[in-house]
Amino acid sequence: MMQRVLNIAVVGFGYWGPNIVRNFHAIEGTRVISVCDRESTALKRVKKSYPSIQTSTDFNKIIYSPDIDAVAIVTPVSAHYELAKKALENGKHIFVEKPFTSTVAQAEKLIELADKKNLKIMVDHTFLFTGAVRKIKELVDNDILGDLYYYDSMRVNLGLFQHDINVIWDLVPHDLSIMDFLIDEKVDAIIASGKPHFGNELEDIAFITVYFTNNIIAHFNVNWLSPVKVRTTLIGGEKRMLVWNDLDADEKIKVYDKGVKVENNEGIYNLLVSYRSGDMWAPKVEQTEALRAEAEYFVDCILNDKTPFNDGHAGLRVIKMLEASNKSLKNEGKMVKL
Amino acid sequence: MMQRVLNIAVVGFGYWGPNIVRNFHAIEGTRVISVCDRESTALKRVKKSYPSIQTSTDFNKIIYSPDIDAVAIVTPVSAHYELAKKALENGKHIFVEKPFTSTVAQAEKLIELADKKNLKIMVDHTFLFTGAVRKIKELVDNDILGDLYYYDSMRVNLGLFQHDINVIWDLVPHDLSIMDFLIDEKVDAIIASGKPHFGNELEDIAFITVYFTNNIIAHFNVNWLSPVKVRTTLIGGEKRMLVWNDLDADEKIKVYDKGVKVENNEGIYNLLVSYRSGDMWAPKVEQTEALRAEAEYFVDCILNDKTPFNDGHAGLRVIKMLEASNKSLKNEGKMVKL
Amino acid sequence: MMQRVLNIAVVGFGYWGPNIVRNFHAIEGTRVISVCDRESTALKRVKKSYPSIQTSTDFNKIIYSPDIDAVAIVTPVSAHYELAKKALENGKHIFVEKPFTSTVAQAEKLIELADKKNLKIMVDHTFLFTGAVRKIKELVDNDILGDLYYYDSMRVNLGLFQHDINVIWDLVPHDLSIMDFLIDEKVDAIIASGKPHFGNELEDIAFITVYFTNNIIAHFNVNWLSPVKVRTTLIGGEKRMLVWNDLDADEKIKVYDKGVKVENNEGIYNLLVSYRSGDMWAPKVEQTEALRAEAEYFVDCILNDKTPFNDGHAGLRVIKMLEASNKSLKNEGKMVKL
Amino acid sequence: MMQRVLNIAVVGFGYWGPNIVRNFHAIEGTRVISVCDRESTALKRVKKSYPSIQTSTDFNKIIYSPDIDAVAIVTPVSAHYELAKKALENGKHIFVEKPFTSTVAQAEKLIELADKKNLKIMVDHTFLFTGAVRKIKELVDNDILGDLYYYDSMRVNLGLFQHDINVIWDLVPHDLSIMDFLIDEKVDAIIASGKPHFGNELEDIAFITVYFTNNIIAHFNVNWLSPVKVRTTLIGGEKRMLVWNDLDADEKIKVYDKGVKVENNEGIYNLLVSYRSGDMWAPKVEQTEALRAEAEYFVDCILNDKTPFNDGHAGLRVIKMLEASNKSLKNEGKMVKL
Repeated sequence: MMQRVLNIAVVGFGYWGPNIVRNFHAIEGTRVISVCDRESTALKRVKKSYPSIQTSTDFNKIIYSPDIDAVAIVTPVSAHYELAKKALENGKHIFVEKPFTSTVAQAEKLIELADKKNLKIMVDHTFLFTGAVRKIKELVDNDILGDLYYYDSMRVNLGLFQHDINVIWDLVPHDLSIMDFLIDEKVDAIIASGKPHFGNELEDIAFITVYFTNNIIAHFNVNWLSPVKVRTTLIGGEKRMLVWNDLDADEKIKVYDKGVKVENNEGIYNLLVSYRSGDMWAPKVEQTEALRAEAEYFVDCILNDKTPFNDGHAGLRVIKMLEASNKSLKNEGKMVKL
Repeated sequence: MMQRVLNIAVVGFGYWGPNIVRNFHAIEGTRVISVCDRESTALKRVKKSYPSIQTSTDFNKIIYSPDIDAVAIVTPVSAHYELAKKALENGKHIFVEKPFTSTVAQAEKLIELADKKNLKIMVDHTFLFTGAVRKIKELVDNDILGDLYYYDSMRVNLGLFQHDINVIWDLVPHDLSIMDFLIDEKVDAIIASGKPHFGNELEDIAFITVYFTNNIIAHFNVNWLSPVKVRTTLIGGEKRMLVWNDLDADEKIKVYDKGVKVENNEGIYNLLVSYRSGDMWAPKVEQTEALRAEAEYFVDCILNDKTPFNDGHAGLRVIKMLEASNKSLKNEGKMVKL
Repeated sequence: MMQRVLNIAVVGFGYWGPNIVRNFHAIEGTRVISVCDRESTALKRVKKSYPSIQTSTDFNKIIYSPDIDAVAIVTPVSAHYELAKKALENGKHIFVEKPFTSTVAQAEKLIELADKKNLKIMVDHTFLFTGAVRKIKELVDNDILGDLYYYDSMRVNLGLFQHDINVIWDLVPHDLSIMDFLIDEKVDAIIASGKPHFGNELEDIAFITVYFTNNIIAHFNVNWLSPVKVRTTLIGGEKRMLVWNDLDADEKIKVYDKGVKVENNEGIYNLLVSYRSGDMWAPKVEQTEALRAEAEYFVDCILNDKTPFNDGHAGLRVIKMLEASNKSLKNEGKMVKL
Repeated sequence: MMQRVLNIAVVGFGYWGPNIVRNFHAIEGTRVISVCDRESTALKRVKKSYPSIQTSTDFNKIIYSPDIDAVAIVTPVSAHYELAKKALENGKHIFVEKPFTSTVAQAEKLIELADKKNLKIMVDHTFLFTGAVRKIKELVDNDILGDLYYYDSMRVNLGLFQHDINVIWDLVPHDLSIMDFLIDEKVDAIIASGKPHFGNELEDIAFITVYFTNNIIAHFNVNWLSPVKVRTTLIGGEKRMLVWNDLDADEKIKVYDKGVKVENNEGIYNLLVSYRSGDMWAPKVEQTEALRAEAEYFVDCILNDKTPFNDGHAGLRVIKMLEASNKSLKNEGKMVKL
């Protein structure tokens, strides 16, 4: 039986769009046949690298083309909803850049629409397809860490300032999507703090605490004003703890056979605390390009009618946490329940 | 003129007490003549190392001894107030382990009492006497960093669990006293989050955000459950930024000639952002023992009637922030104004 | 006046050839018009990326083409001499991959031939065009380090085993060319040791000591069997010393204001030694692509009749040291004079 | 049965002597009863810390005292032989600072003398008692690394210049004793190079290559003029490779599941090379004081008539390699057979 060819259109050819085009284009049986961008200079760059791809500044050409099976939306987040809605209404599967939408309400409407039309939504949570996150997922799922205590992430560097969203909407979606992927528990509430430093109202530094309904606490430290780049996450469990340093070329994940055991026999003043300290182990992490694996997974989900784990619901869960973070921030740290 | 000899008594000979005794004992013209502890095994250790020092389990022997000029209080924080009060009432200068007291009210009473009696209070904020903190103070005071934007500290490791105080009261006093020393601005409000994991009510992980009345935001990440030890502080300023890694033996402080300049001409959507990235510079840091310098400073303040910068007021400012942190924690992150 | 166009042919499209083609192709006023390789699969890759470039398995087509101004030779070293000779004989400038030739005699003949024909030779010592080496050159030339004492390099990693040359000919040319560029002194003698481990006669680990006629000693540690990748060079001078870690993304060069001063007043048993230890400083290093700068420099040397500093003589000096190293190795470490 | 008390005398109370006294003194059933030094200021320091220990500037008092069972010789190496000889002649066991003696001949005579008198010699190769070296020994002995290919050590820092011995005799004994302990194979030959920089004849930088009779090669890089302190050893085996960084507080030993497999079917131009790259593992290393364990082992060897693994023969093997290194150095790198 012949495999049918899947035709993709890409909307937005700015910073990330070229990676999307390159990766979908490289998949056997898939073609990027059309790229749309408001800037004609962007379209010229498309033509130079891919003479065979049609270009247009008019999104409607894509929407109404019967040749197109799926649309990848790689624009600023403020445009996601309108584009995604039209694409779904016209029977196209969608691959949407993170964060999924600007509001929870938008995300819910898109999910409903896709369900009705039996179309796929994939949100581009690229990190879930890296060797490092896949390896951590494996460690968590195989109970190597034991019951989790905390997830503590730091993602800071110098710039790039965004003009339309604060540092939370810019940097935290990465970490929230990873946390959501790794920890299969319900988030209960969020506390956020932060500060804009330059006269506008967009925070350039922020700190978010996420409480789960169980014993887990998570924390996210994001900063556009750091002299050094840090991409480090600590995950503590009852059995073992790990440090994921995404900037370490060779030893991204270190698993520590360390732990604290606390027995509480007779009230809080009689805790028996014992520490365990053993070997450290850095599992080998696969070094394939994450976006390529994600693009292939999108195609696979469409052709074989699978529900992606990074579907609209996953995107929605992240948006809920982002919305709650901003709400807490505007309310002086008041806890926002989800 | 002969220099008179200063006689010190030390109360508490547990983990930190031996360092206090050793350092005061080593100062020319100062003698530790008495050590008091409730545990007779602790007193045996004193006698073994210092046969000439008197030991007692009875604090009153110290209080009423006319030979003693000053008392160093190195007990758990819950005992500080009563011991300090008696010492001051009986005309002794006091050197008090951090945190100064258990409550703001206690700290205020001790300050009032010392003022009335014309006695010195020094709170043992040892870190202020390290080469690293002195060097950072020099950089800040000489405007090398420019106006500050943020202070972001991480102090995590495995254990030691405390049985009577949470991780905030255990670890954050170090960082709050350092921040208070470095940043001569007024603190406005505090937001705290955190979680106890072992059935008692003492948080083992906590996150504190401190807002100043001006443009500065500070953040403290403390954790008793980390597989790795981290002692890192980022300080960002308009001109330069620094990273202080206290675990780096040779390059504790790195000053980055990096910066962000934002010009906001026409509203928030027209920010002109420019980045600057230059050399890094690691100034030499003196490696003397901090506690020795602090002990000498205490003696100097008494003999020459100086007011220490780490006096009761400095101790009080830290206690106010700790109290506000715990209050915010109990109120689900609600901002507490100072 | 119109700038004339320079036409380049590239021989060899294996591991490094594509970088050569890409960089020469990107220079304004320069075109790669022909690529030659014995493998037709390599030529297919050329056609895919650069449909306009002519390809051939026959080197003579290049040699006799009047359109070609210069030939880049990117083959295994064993083929360099014959190809370079023919190219020069037919009036082409040459850009030759390192190491320049297989023997000193070959290098000398090519230099003589180029001189006679008034053609340029550039040996591809790419590292000389990196920001790091340019910065170190600047520090040495400006006497920041003072008179040099030593140059100590370690370049080890796992693989890639070469089948025709030992680890010395594979890895040390990089470091010898850098040392030759930085240190404008005469090399006196070489001692080498090493070992093959796998039954052939090609050493996979080797150690080379280079004595200069003055006070400087240099050392090179190369190894194909290391579990970790190391690219570190220590350079010690009378005034300051530096560490160049080429794997450090952000702080490649660290200059230490440290030194040893030895006064020798009355014989060897009365040395007065004093140590100096000050700040460390990591100058900003430019991050441009070295090969691009080198390609531009080659074009500039041809068009403006300049003698490149990485000319045939620089290549020859490296070959002399490689030949001496192998000779010492075969003679059980016996010192070989240059 | 009562355990008899062992009486130790210590000769030399300079840099290392106080550690020897402290550790022997702390052993149950062992007493340091006498310390001898030519400097009366050194003896004053003894009296201050240990009022009960007899002090003397006259070595003969120790030699002829019937109370003394063993003598620890902690003087400069030039005095070792005469002191050790007299001690053995007078029936004392000896514990001798490294390097054992100044010459091979001296070491051989002491071994012969001790054998005749049935006395113990222990050479203070302290590193063999560290947690790190014990762990590596365990890995090697349990064939975790497989057959060894190489041992490559770097031990560099700023100072301290010695006035009577070069950097080889100062720093390499540590590494040679460790290599000798770990690798139970015969050393075949040595090549050394190096340079004095300050007008005397004592090399401050040196490089030593050691060939074993089998497939192993070892290398030692020592330097008194390095701006940074490095204490790193790479050990490569057929199955796995390790990096020992003695300056890493938490992860001193990293074992890499990496390897190279070379099959040589049809001559040297047809090598089939395959690489293997797996996890990394940092075993927990015990953190006890090495010298304490060594002192206890010395006492144990005397009381229970055991032959220490760091006996005179181990000391002699190191001296042979040091002597060969210096000989090669004086002969311009000529290989010296052992």
